[in-house]
Amino acid sequence: MTALKATAIANSNIALVKYWGKRDERLLLPANSSISVTLDDLYTTTTVEFGGKRRADRIQLDGRELLGEERTRVVRHLDLVRKLAGIKGKARVESKNNFPTAAGLASSASGFCALSLAASAAAGMGLDARNLSILSRLGSGSASRSVYGGFVEWVKGHQRDGSDSCAVQLADETHWKDFRLVTTIVTSTKKKISSRAGMRETVKTSPLYKTWLETIDPDLKAIRKGIRQRNLTQVGEIAEVNCLKMHATMMTTTPRVLYWQPATMEVIRSVVDWRASGERCWFTIDGGPNVKVLCRAKDARRLARKLEGLKGVKKAIVCKPGQGARLSFKHLF
Amino acid sequence: MTALKATAIANSNIALVKYWGKRDERLLLPANSSISVTLDDLYTTTTVEFGGKRRADRIQLDGRELLGEERTRVVRHLDLVRKLAGIKGKARVESKNNFPTAAGLASSASGFCALSLAASAAAGMGLDARNLSILSRLGSGSASRSVYGGFVEWVKGHQRDGSDSCAVQLADETHWKDFRLVTTIVTSTKKKISSRAGMRETVKTSPLYKTWLETIDPDLKAIRKGIRQRNLTQVGEIAEVNCLKMHATMMTTTPRVLYWQPATMEVIRSVVDWRASGERCWFTIDGGPNVKVLCRAKDARRLARKLEGLKGVKKAIVCKPGQGARLSFKHLF
Repeated sequence: MTALKATAIANSNIALVKYWGKRDERLLLPANSSISVTLDDLYTTTTVEFGGKRRADRIQLDGRELLGEERTRVVRHLDLVRKLAGIKGKARVESKNNFPTAAGLASSASGFCALSLAASAAAGMGLDARNLSILSRLGSGSASRSVYGGFVEWVKGHQRDGSDSCAVQLADETHWKDFRLVTTIVTSTKKKISSRAGMRETVKTSPLYKTWLETIDPDLKAIRKGIRQRNLTQVGEIAEVNCLKMHATMMTTTPRVLYWQPATMEVIRSVVDWRASGERCWFTIDGGPNVKVLCRAKDARRLARKLEGLKGVKKAIVCKPGQGARLSFKHLF
Repeated sequence: MTALKATAIANSNIALVKYWGKRDERLLLPANSSISVTLDDLYTTTTVEFGGKRRADRIQLDGRELLGEERTRVVRHLDLVRKLAGIKGKARVESKNNFPTAAGLASSASGFCALSLAASAAAGMGLDARNLSILSRLGSGSASRSVYGGFVEWVKGHQRDGSDSCAVQLADETHWKDFRLVTTIVTSTKKKISSRAGMRETVKTSPLYKTWLETIDPDLKAIRKGIRQRNLTQVGEIAEVNCLKMHATMMTTTPRVLYWQPATMEVIRSVVDWRASGERCWFTIDGGPNVKVLCRAKDARRLARKLEGLKGVKKAIVCKPGQGARLSFKHLF
């Protein structure tokens, strides 16, 4: 069998209306729709090569050989691609993030989207965006959104087989040129509770989970309108309350799902204080300790410097809306 | 008119099922019942003297003359006592907390309870506990609970005039000798948002407030049973989730009601981590940054030392269940 090889790049995405909790654990079907922005400046590059004389898949992330559960999750995804493509060869996977892995910077979103595109292309499948979104979702729910650039909605769908649970683009990366998201990094240690395990416990035990779900539809509606109208106040306010509701349901889970660090609280308080004194900024926090700050282009650098001046903040990266997942043909030249 | 003078001591109390939000702003009637423990080691001592030749009330707290809104609130309470007792003289009030004021250590609870008892006694009213609880409530809602020792429920009541909204004792301070609450002090600055203003905004704007109210009755029932059976796991677990639900509703208020500091998060995370490694400890947090840790008597000193070792924690005070409000007759001797 000749070697089949492809390299894909997928940007990470940050949800403005969050995804937390599944209605189907096996097919990774979400309990609610979510809306995200795809980020130009945080991405994963993944090369997949099938074939050769390998007797097992070899999977590297940032130069480190994956083992245990992390490896199993990728191998299962490769198995799915092999099954769909009707091929058998073992794979070599090399993946690189340009940001710290598993620190709440959506590494599994960009990671599984890049893996899905690279593996499906290497296996000779010419997937359209919709099917790439579904395949990505089967690797990691939020990866379904990284297929598209700009502002993206992952529509939860209604079919039992998940065939209508995929992302759609609300607006591409050129729609809102003034939008910025400043990503702070307060710690780069791996989080203790994976999103997957945390979600499962939340759905089962949080007394707030029902309310979380009930208040999603108004949030989706309001944020779609805010994005359409490029209304930062509306998008910022909804994103902030939505994120706080999500963390509230996490925190009231047994056992507790606590992603915030002391520095997280420091950033939250500062953003709220700054806003009270006239700054136009709002925060959102994924399943991790890092806070992302929504703002206008002209304020972004200054806010990033202010954020880097806070105790416990290591770095602040200014991100703008970015493009969807794409194949890289550099290796051909 | 001869001088009428009395000194009262009231312990602070910490709610295990919290009070947040009023159904009547003027009569301080709560939207929900709450359950607290009265603490032996944190208290306010207040002396009230009516009469003499004063032309205005003079009110001192910790040696500082009260001004503005703080003063107005006390003067209004004195007016109420004067009206009920049918007296007219202006008052001299001297009040002392043995802990930092307005840092979430329930200073208004012990403060208004001690004020109510001292003022009503100085005015010659012999109030029974029930009426003292109602009078205290009219000064500050949670003050209604400090009238009793041990474990106390403030029954929200149903009457429009508030005549059935007062505290009852669930168990006195000798019922659960093994119960301890370690109070950490992470900051002693005055908080920016008063409980009163925060509550008002929460009731109006938090998308979680309805759920907060709906989940109170099961919490009350479970914690009453836990107290009766001296079951620390049950009381701790309910208190912790209840407090997280309250802070969740606060955080999702517009404008945000954020009482947590970075050190608050540090203590929260530590307590949860310690528990995961076998320590028997749970936390609760009032409207402020300080975390209180529920534990057994034999673990209290050790936990207090561990807490004092955390970044941002200035002090940890071991408290046991204490007695209700009482008059002090020291000045007679």
